[in-house]
Amino acid sequence: MNRIDLLLYNIGVLITMQGSALPRTKEDMSQVGEIHNAAIAVLDGKIVAVGTEEEVRAVITGLPILKQIDAEGKLVTPGLVDPHTHLVHGGSREHELPLKLKGATYLEILAQGGGILSTVRATRLATEEKLYAKALTSLNTMLLQGATTVEAKSGYGLTMKDELKQLRVTQRLNQSHPVDLVSTFMGAHMIPEEYKQDPSAYVELVIHEMLPEVKRLGLAEFCDVFCEHGVFSVEQSRQILHAARELGFGLKIHADEIVPMGGAELAGELGCISAEHLIAASDEGIAAMQQAGVIAVCLPATSFNLRLKEHARARSMIDMGVPVALSTDYNPGSSPTESIQLVMTLGCLNLLLSPEEVITAITINAAHAIGRADTIGSLEVGKYADIVLYNATNLAYLPYHFGINHVHTVIKQGQVVVSNGQLAYPTL
Amino acid sequence: MNRIDLLLYNIGVLITMQGSALPRTKEDMSQVGEIHNAAIAVLDGKIVAVGTEEEVRAVITGLPILKQIDAEGKLVTPGLVDPHTHLVHGGSREHELPLKLKGATYLEILAQGGGILSTVRATRLATEEKLYAKALTSLNTMLLQGATTVEAKSGYGLTMKDELKQLRVTQRLNQSHPVDLVSTFMGAHMIPEEYKQDPSAYVELVIHEMLPEVKRLGLAEFCDVFCEHGVFSVEQSRQILHAARELGFGLKIHADEIVPMGGAELAGELGCISAEHLIAASDEGIAAMQQAGVIAVCLPATSFNLRLKEHARARSMIDMGVPVALSTDYNPGSSPTESIQLVMTLGCLNLLLSPEEVITAITINAAHAIGRADTIGSLEVGKYADIVLYNATNLAYLPYHFGINHVHTVIKQGQVVVSNGQLAYPTL
Ligand SMILES: [Zn+2]
Ligand SMILES: [Zn+2]
Repeated sequence: MNRIDLLLYNIGVLITMQGSALPRTKEDMSQVGEIHNAAIAVLDGKIVAVGTEEEVRAVITGLPILKQIDAEGKLVTPGLVDPHTHLVHGGSREHELPLKLKGATYLEILAQGGGILSTVRATRLATEEKLYAKALTSLNTMLLQGATTVEAKSGYGLTMKDELKQLRVTQRLNQSHPVDLVSTFMGAHMIPEEYKQDPSAYVELVIHEMLPEVKRLGLAEFCDVFCEHGVFSVEQSRQILHAARELGFGLKIHADEIVPMGGAELAGELGCISAEHLIAASDEGIAAMQQAGVIAVCLPATSFNLRLKEHARARSMIDMGVPVALSTDYNPGSSPTESIQLVMTLGCLNLLLSPEEVITAITINAAHAIGRADTIGSLEVGKYADIVLYNATNLAYLPYHFGINHVHTVIKQGQVVVSNGQLAYPTL
Repeated sequence: MNRIDLLLYNIGVLITMQGSALPRTKEDMSQVGEIHNAAIAVLDGKIVAVGTEEEVRAVITGLPILKQIDAEGKLVTPGLVDPHTHLVHGGSREHELPLKLKGATYLEILAQGGGILSTVRATRLATEEKLYAKALTSLNTMLLQGATTVEAKSGYGLTMKDELKQLRVTQRLNQSHPVDLVSTFMGAHMIPEEYKQDPSAYVELVIHEMLPEVKRLGLAEFCDVFCEHGVFSVEQSRQILHAARELGFGLKIHADEIVPMGGAELAGELGCISAEHLIAASDEGIAAMQQAGVIAVCLPATSFNLRLKEHARARSMIDMGVPVALSTDYNPGSSPTESIQLVMTLGCLNLLLSPEEVITAITINAAHAIGRADTIGSLEVGKYADIVLYNATNLAYLPYHFGINHVHTVIKQGQVVVSNGQLAYPTL
């Protein structure tokens, strides 16, 4: 070590999440590794020293420092990780809002050609360039909110061509944008209209054509399935995920969002890396997840926006020993928001997590949920210098003072990409 | 008219609220005066032409135009009006969030010296400069959210000296900041601790000393009272508001927030300009308000943040002919948010108003609720050019795509004060 590229000093409160080899649950979700009067030193995009400012300055003493940032006594956390989004899609569905407010059911809206069907139509019609431009805008919004790594699912194409189109957009964004994207193939998001009479033929298409081709092209790391009444049954989900595992995909599952049908149990049986939604998950399902070490990805913005009376039982899951992550579920229908900070507020108010549990859920646990905990999710020597500095002096202020963006500076792999609340990365 | 100072053209969708001499209710709340392919011309801070771009260009033909802004086909509304805030206060209460999430009641937090008592302590201890700096930050956040006029209440001082200190901060901000502030004296916000044994002595202080002094100094236009069990009774509220009316104040009342105790009825009896909260308002109270033309100011961010199962019955109020306005209720305890845009979303999701009713509630009806409908709240010839341009192409998108700030440009009395989502006014 012959220099320091970046020194972030005078940090009032530093949330490190140090010691995070495993996803956290129970009381470990409240241990956020808080350090006061702290500093972080960065070289080649990675953290080379982190601790009290005194400790860090001792480690780097004598080295030239290329860039210094004064945190002015403010709060710093690891870069936020959004582990469940439907980032790439065509169209927008605000015209459904008045119908919804008048009490139209999901099925009534679907019958009018709305709902997810309209997003599938718009995504199929959109050029790759158009999808790219729209997703780029959302990804910038996520970055401005403090997200430095984001998972992105396909699943609005539902044909080979259109699924690959979505996945290529994710790949291109990952190459050109400072936010790291983790790609998930979700051809099994719904049964497309043209297969309504023969759903099993679509399952065959996913298993025998789409999955191998996505694998061959290296376009996704995970496979996800929407296991729900009227979408994919437990048995169909099992078949698809088995096939995905054979090909080397990591496994995820949208489980028990609306009715308890055994999705959480299946996640446990298959040892999925994560199970999503879980609003209606049974005690047995939660126990199966706990046994298998499955991470629960709860989506409080979705249940808020759907005006549900019940939310995922994240509080009980944590108490039962299931690691919980939180996410925006950004998508054009059930959760049209990129705001991971509003998710923090909803995690407190609607899921009854503490601010400490919430930050754990959107940093290290979210990193574990997308297989990235070896490089991100905590501020430790050797990990990427993905760092967020807030206009706040304590952690509770973030969810408490709600509805506004508290981010001041975002550092991605040692580079300042948001400064004074503004995008500051060079466009390619 | 020998020139045009500003021409805003190529407006895709313009919400004008034209024809707004009276507060709107019933189906009139859905009539937002939408014009497509529109333009607005401004001279000396006021609107001199508004309509389709063709109409406006015909009116101003031949005149030199000093500045032009291309709206690029986007959505434009009147400047947003936030008619109920507690803008000026000391301290911050995020340390109460963990207690609240563990189920501590308001009274338990109060017993620990928390709650509104801690804000009163912090406000009394703060210097005028410190209060000014904190309120300025919030006011900038409000402006970035699209608010061009904001009501601000005192009521955390509760001594002559400290109430006047709060009101002077409001006055100074009004003079120096582009957002117009409307000042409300609310010495009757709670019974201060030192009067707990003799509340009527505090009522006497408010009536015989504070109100006349505030009037003499010209520091407030309205008087507001917190009429609630354990705060001010209906009879005490009546006395205070009567005295205020004698002195020439406009009247407001925090009514029936928690229990129906006749606050809405009192608002009707006194002909208050507005009544606030109203979550527990009785049918009789709502009818009395309707009879007297009292505007209901509903505060959905507060009921959201307090995790209430019930919200104000704004939908019924509108159907019964009461004009409804919405507001952030920005304050450090029950509603720590400056986001009028999140209020739009909550107005739809939790109060079941349509996007049209919501925009009416935060423009012309809010302007009526603070006595400013003659100059703001709609885009009409002769009114101030207070205008917001959004990164959106239709009205429903604003509440639908939630949790983020959609504002692109804010124009206050013809001056660009927010540009590309950033503050752009010259600091004094
Ligand atoms: Zn999803
Ligand atoms: Zn209030």
